[in-house]
Amino acid sequence: MRIKDFQKELKRKGLPVALLFNLEEHLNPSFYYFTRYDGYGCLVVPATGKPLVIVPPMEEERAKDTTPLHVLAYRKSFAGTLQRVIGRPRNIGIDHSTVPILSHRRLRKRMPRARFADVSTIIDRLRIVKTETELSYLRKACAMSDDILHTCFDHFKKFRTEKDVYRFLDQETRNRDSVFSFDAIVASGGNASQPHHRPANVKLKKGFCVIDFGVKYQGYCSDTTRMVYLGRPSRKELALYQLMLDAQEHVTTLYTQGASCVDVFDASVKALGTYGKYFIHGLGHGIGVEVHEPPSLGPNSEERLATGMTVTNEPGVYLPGKLGIRIEDSIIVTKKRPEIITRIPRVLRIIR
Amino acid sequence: MRIKDFQKELKRKGLPVALLFNLEEHLNPSFYYFTRYDGYGCLVVPATGKPLVIVPPMEEERAKDTTPLHVLAYRKSFAGTLQRVIGRPRNIGIDHSTVPILSHRRLRKRMPRARFADVSTIIDRLRIVKTETELSYLRKACAMSDDILHTCFDHFKKFRTEKDVYRFLDQETRNRDSVFSFDAIVASGGNASQPHHRPANVKLKKGFCVIDFGVKYQGYCSDTTRMVYLGRPSRKELALYQLMLDAQEHVTTLYTQGASCVDVFDASVKALGTYGKYFIHGLGHGIGVEVHEPPSLGPNSEERLATGMTVTNEPGVYLPGKLGIRIEDSIIVTKKRPEIITRIPRVLRIIR
Repeated sequence: MRIKDFQKELKRKGLPVALLFNLEEHLNPSFYYFTRYDGYGCLVVPATGKPLVIVPPMEEERAKDTTPLHVLAYRKSFAGTLQRVIGRPRNIGIDHSTVPILSHRRLRKRMPRARFADVSTIIDRLRIVKTETELSYLRKACAMSDDILHTCFDHFKKFRTEKDVYRFLDQETRNRDSVFSFDAIVASGGNASQPHHRPANVKLKKGFCVIDFGVKYQGYCSDTTRMVYLGRPSRKELALYQLMLDAQEHVTTLYTQGASCVDVFDASVKALGTYGKYFIHGLGHGIGVEVHEPPSLGPNSEERLATGMTVTNEPGVYLPGKLGIRIEDSIIVTKKRPEIITRIPRVLRIIR
Repeated sequence: MRIKDFQKELKRKGLPVALLFNLEEHLNPSFYYFTRYDGYGCLVVPATGKPLVIVPPMEEERAKDTTPLHVLAYRKSFAGTLQRVIGRPRNIGIDHSTVPILSHRRLRKRMPRARFADVSTIIDRLRIVKTETELSYLRKACAMSDDILHTCFDHFKKFRTEKDVYRFLDQETRNRDSVFSFDAIVASGGNASQPHHRPANVKLKKGFCVIDFGVKYQGYCSDTTRMVYLGRPSRKELALYQLMLDAQEHVTTLYTQGASCVDVFDASVKALGTYGKYFIHGLGHGIGVEVHEPPSLGPNSEERLATGMTVTNEPGVYLPGKLGIRIEDSIIVTKKRPEIITRIPRVLRIIR
């Protein structure tokens, strides 16, 4: 989305060109980010001039149908075509966070005089702050998942198994011509104490049930978690839910320009009080063309939040074999009030 | 599946231990191959002694439910736990074909005295030849997709769009508690001249329609392509189909122990005669836990076929904007007669 900014950075770093690969042996979501084409190929970004995408002959038509960039299909060999396009530069930018050691070795063999500098931090810095277009896609993805979740809760009484719920979410997602942004989690009773439980063909258990789910809109991911209770919750359970909800909502107010990610994480552990020790994962992560991307909000985070970042807020508590509760929103960081883009109410849905 | 053979190779190479990572930032199908657990973690394979899988705390239960290997969840930090487990060996095997440059740099920083040798070729050599268990999974995956394709052809008259066919295949796959091994291709009329065309919400066009589709059984992939004709084929079209079919069936007989992959590829181009120039992709690829894995049969292949390899045979011709025809089987290489494990007849299904 920010290919011109990328070119500026290349110029600033004295890199005449960068190559971003998206190959079967190593996919790179940044390739899709810049090209909007999700097949195999190599994006060639010169510091000045027009970027282009080199693709295998069999992908030519599809690439042309999807990317606004210039597409060139190689005929005989990719290497030959690439060399004709870029010549023999001494410095080439590649993404060290995705190119495997072996591919790097092959590149060096093919272009023995070139140095392959890392451009992953440049790209991370671009991707972490969303453009207005990206924000509009993220809002729409969240609105679509809100809508699907509403429908799901309306039908909840008829579901017998976790898989029933999963299939319903999946079907509603397809009906809207979309796909999951990650494999949906439906975890009832003791299963919910595994944060990444896979929905099973087992009867929905009494007690708390975690629904963690997202869809894609224009390639951009939503991510929401809401809670259902099957049966009649005890006072203690309701109090625990309220504690979680208060903590989650309090933490949302901390998603502001300049906040340190580790401080926000620490505040969430503190807000969970004595339950803090049952919070066994990070507090949140960026969303974009990937459902997990920088920044991350955890005990070792080094980033600070900035306007335009779009980040989840998902504290959870997990009592092994007993229960799991997680509430998750996706939030756009702004200068003042965070914009919550998952708008479906965070209320506990009690299904008797 | 062959973890003991892997350990023997490590011993032979003087490597006391190998680490295989499966992380969000770089997945490695070989991790699943050895562990049968598809979540995040690090497989620690000592040259002697018991392998174990180190996983994040939130994956502990799921890992224990799926892998037969010993599972250890780290508490504070992965690095600390890993060091306690492996000590400070001077030589460590890692998979250079999947570990990104940046992760390699981090590993070297963390263990500055260790050398990280490449074990990817060892693993490739193990994975390329299937065990009896793997062959039984591959046969079952192919039988399941045969069954689904039969059902699909029985219902073909009622489909209006490419997406209708796609959705039917998808639904039948789910009904059998399986998933696609790759995104199914349904390409009618001129769309079929793009070998990787995505099924569209467009009316099925008259003429040839490519159905390229596979499912998973126990994590193992099937891959089959069959052809439908909508309307009344001309004599010329029938003759072209027959030419393709004869070529494909002839090439199957070449899938024998010791055959050079490049020779088999060359023979397929030759068998297509004047249409050889419209054959714009490789002839085949191994199938296993990945739908595309070694060996590959193309103009630059260096492998030879060997007993137990399971490989596709999929010649195709593509007349840009006009038509595409591809016929594909999955084949187990044996000493004598190749075993075709996609058993649904290769006849052209004519739908009037």
